[in-house]
Amino acid sequence: MFEVAEIGHGVVPPASTQQAEDLRTALLNAQMAVVRERAFPVLVLISGVDGAGKGELVHLLNHWMDPRHVETHAVGEASKMDRERPPMWRFWMGLPPKGEVGVFFGSWYTAPLYDRAYAKLRRSEFEANLDQIVRFEKMLTDEGVLLFKVWLHLTKRVQHKTFKRLSRSRATRWRVSASDRENHARYDRFKQTAEEAVRRTSTDNAPWLLVDASDAHNRHLSVAEALTVAITRRLAEADEPVAGAPAEAASAPAVIEPKNLLASLEPSRSIGKGEYKAQLEACQRELNRLSRLMNKRGRSMVVAFEGFDASGKGGAIRRVADAMDARHYRIVPVGTPSDEELARPYLWRFWRHLPSRGGITVFDRSWYGRVLVERVEGYCTEADWRRAYTEINDFEEQLATHGSLLVKFWMSVTSEEQLRRFEERQSTEWKRFKITEEDWRNRKQRPAYERAVTDMVERTSTPLAPWTLVAGDDKPRARIEVLSTLIERLAGALEK
Amino acid sequence: MFEVAEIGHGVVPPASTQQAEDLRTALLNAQMAVVRERAFPVLVLISGVDGAGKGELVHLLNHWMDPRHVETHAVGEASKMDRERPPMWRFWMGLPPKGEVGVFFGSWYTAPLYDRAYAKLRRSEFEANLDQIVRFEKMLTDEGVLLFKVWLHLTKRVQHKTFKRLSRSRATRWRVSASDRENHARYDRFKQTAEEAVRRTSTDNAPWLLVDASDAHNRHLSVAEALTVAITRRLAEADEPVAGAPAEAASAPAVIEPKNLLASLEPSRSIGKGEYKAQLEACQRELNRLSRLMNKRGRSMVVAFEGFDASGKGGAIRRVADAMDARHYRIVPVGTPSDEELARPYLWRFWRHLPSRGGITVFDRSWYGRVLVERVEGYCTEADWRRAYTEINDFEEQLATHGSLLVKFWMSVTSEEQLRRFEERQSTEWKRFKITEEDWRNRKQRPAYERAVTDMVERTSTPLAPWTLVAGDDKPRARIEVLSTLIERLAGALEK
Repeated sequence: MFEVAEIGHGVVPPASTQQAEDLRTALLNAQMAVVRERAFPVLVLISGVDGAGKGELVHLLNHWMDPRHVETHAVGEASKMDRERPPMWRFWMGLPPKGEVGVFFGSWYTAPLYDRAYAKLRRSEFEANLDQIVRFEKMLTDEGVLLFKVWLHLTKRVQHKTFKRLSRSRATRWRVSASDRENHARYDRFKQTAEEAVRRTSTDNAPWLLVDASDAHNRHLSVAEALTVAITRRLAEADEPVAGAPAEAASAPAVIEPKNLLASLEPSRSIGKGEYKAQLEACQRELNRLSRLMNKRGRSMVVAFEGFDASGKGGAIRRVADAMDARHYRIVPVGTPSDEELARPYLWRFWRHLPSRGGITVFDRSWYGRVLVERVEGYCTEADWRRAYTEINDFEEQLATHGSLLVKFWMSVTSEEQLRRFEERQSTEWKRFKITEEDWRNRKQRPAYERAVTDMVERTSTPLAPWTLVAGDDKPRARIEVLSTLIERLAGALEK
Repeated sequence: MFEVAEIGHGVVPPASTQQAEDLRTALLNAQMAVVRERAFPVLVLISGVDGAGKGELVHLLNHWMDPRHVETHAVGEASKMDRERPPMWRFWMGLPPKGEVGVFFGSWYTAPLYDRAYAKLRRSEFEANLDQIVRFEKMLTDEGVLLFKVWLHLTKRVQHKTFKRLSRSRATRWRVSASDRENHARYDRFKQTAEEAVRRTSTDNAPWLLVDASDAHNRHLSVAEALTVAITRRLAEADEPVAGAPAEAASAPAVIEPKNLLASLEPSRSIGKGEYKAQLEACQRELNRLSRLMNKRGRSMVVAFEGFDASGKGGAIRRVADAMDARHYRIVPVGTPSDEELARPYLWRFWRHLPSRGGITVFDRSWYGRVLVERVEGYCTEADWRRAYTEINDFEEQLATHGSLLVKFWMSVTSEEQLRRFEERQSTEWKRFKITEEDWRNRKQRPAYERAVTDMVERTSTPLAPWTLVAGDDKPRARIEVLSTLIERLAGALEK
């Protein structure tokens, strides 16, 4: 495939200075419009063979655009900090907000390409990697990111000549590294691997731009022009009224009758005060032991609590927290997103709180907000929440593959008990803050929430990340059930 | 001193349930007002001897306040990530934003206290540590943080009894750790050290609350009551018109005539194109070598660029960046702060970008904004920018003590050359974005800026973090000077 690019110069004729200056102005104007309108994030991936001038291209983009709104991330070896989270964490952390340009010098393609070229990845693993990338990029573009992927290509002969020229002078020798030389020896293998990657990941929403890199002028102008076109086109689209994205065919209405799922949670028979105290202490002791062991072994855990209003999430979370060493866990209450969060893809605000090795993050409400409150209240489009199931499963799969234990609770409560608690809250002064107009509104939406919960459980309960549904009418019982579940899951994970 | 607390129970009489409930309501209402108005950050430090019930108190605060607006940080051993930055970094990163309560379970007192009790710190070092803490806390409160410090005290006898009681039952034994026992053996030493720390750091703006912790009820009620009072008082103050804080006596007008300093930067004689190219290549090669060496040795570097508009900061930064491995450095353009940044003390937005070991952060404009643009344009009060000199020196001293190399450039340009560049920018289409109405306004303020620069250099040029003033009229020369300075400073730092 790269033969097309190898045809050489002349695809874009060597431009006059005037041409370059016009292009520069056009690119800058396009960028400034994005900055001014905080329109969308622009993410530029610069990939390609060694010696093709990736660094110079990064330099040019910084030079031609307003560098105060360009952030460059060079992707080297994963740092210790990076390795404590799933591999995609560092890319998530580098995602530009709306209005900014992020330039990734190397990217999520780098590791799979090298590992495959050096035969550290089997073909099937490599392909699974590429499929994951396709899904990740789809999420990015669905979330409004303009993703611009550049592949700079050089023939083996030109790469050889480039290295020779740079090595000749003392002034430029340092620009050719030992690994450049090593990779050059594997040129053919790299080419074949890269071709496959580019082919499999050139999608409608995130196509690759293949550039013949043998001529610097051509290389720069081709990229600048294509980037200008891409930005301008997206800006124009943004002004048009959005045609409602069609719902995915796979997302037919849930088959299970909502009532069945939640009604199966029988109001549990209550346990006595003495029994509760004894069980609570025993559970907390065991949870304490296991969570210390987990920390010692460098494993991490993510716990998500969702539930109806007044279902007892807070009380359960406190009992969990009380059993653990405060240095190991962190509770993240999920409320209104900040502007830094709103400017990035939806899952960013959860990725940023993932625990490092040995750590525990407890989310009080979670990424499921999108398929619960956002769906029911219409805070996002139907297309948004429908694709969220897949995005969430991908996210959780990455956590599990990384070795994090993921435990998810849905705290239920019957409508009658919820009403009793609401009324109690309203009559107790220090509980009154817990009840708002919104809670009463949500209560009226109960059937819609029940449908949303059923769909959620059905679509996101996976063997690696199953949901635990807790009947919350009896608070002591519900707390014991939460603690026991955590103990069971932790013990299971530590056996492996 | 702790004898006062040792007098025992009865300071606050054992409260009835009604009393506790009233207090709980009052605390919650106070917190909700802070949340609602996003009034100020509340930072609660829970310190004290082992077994005094620090954990239970943290639990109580989370229970009595709305836990969705309380974030607890347990301060254990510094993690690898923490140790890659100055010791205060992890506390900075945990600072709550306005409207939120941060509870630090252990704090910046923990390490000095333990190290002193275990004789790992000399007296003079310990005292220097406490002085630094006093300055840090002053900065926090000046920045509007409500700092509430609790010391829980237990007599040796009660501590012993507590441990014995907890150890007796299998259900609670895990709550007493090996280090608790070890610390108990050093009780007297701890007490003496803690007394000194509490005495030296009890300031008007951040006093300690000493609590007799032998009775849980008393402990909880005392803390809850004092915290409620503190919050309520601050809320009331916030409603009053601010009496202009008196300028510090030490901040008399600068003695040096501003003209002297900047005028001493002679428009430098220009260098030829060929000479420039040769020097640039030589400098970049050497900077490349040294920055790689620095990375290899795990040292880090922070570079700050300040300067008049159109003084050539951007061009210089690009030449620096081009010489370094993109995986090692990060450029942080400092523009409008985000809402997450605005909600925290001023320096937070710079702390969050500090490099880890082996990393380089280049700030394009920096923390000096406060004593430059914010001073000149009146974006902050005079008291704010006057105290900023000390805060900045403290910040930079911490960087230097940690082993980071700090290099600061002021890029100057004569008024005539600046005018020429402004006009050129306006007539070149792709340069036009660089010039705004604001630049013309700033130009008229030149005398005020010159005064601010002179004060800044005079007050913040320290042996560890000297300013380098660069005459920017001749761009090539200025760039070579920037590169040479970096080379010189890096070489010097690597010799050590």
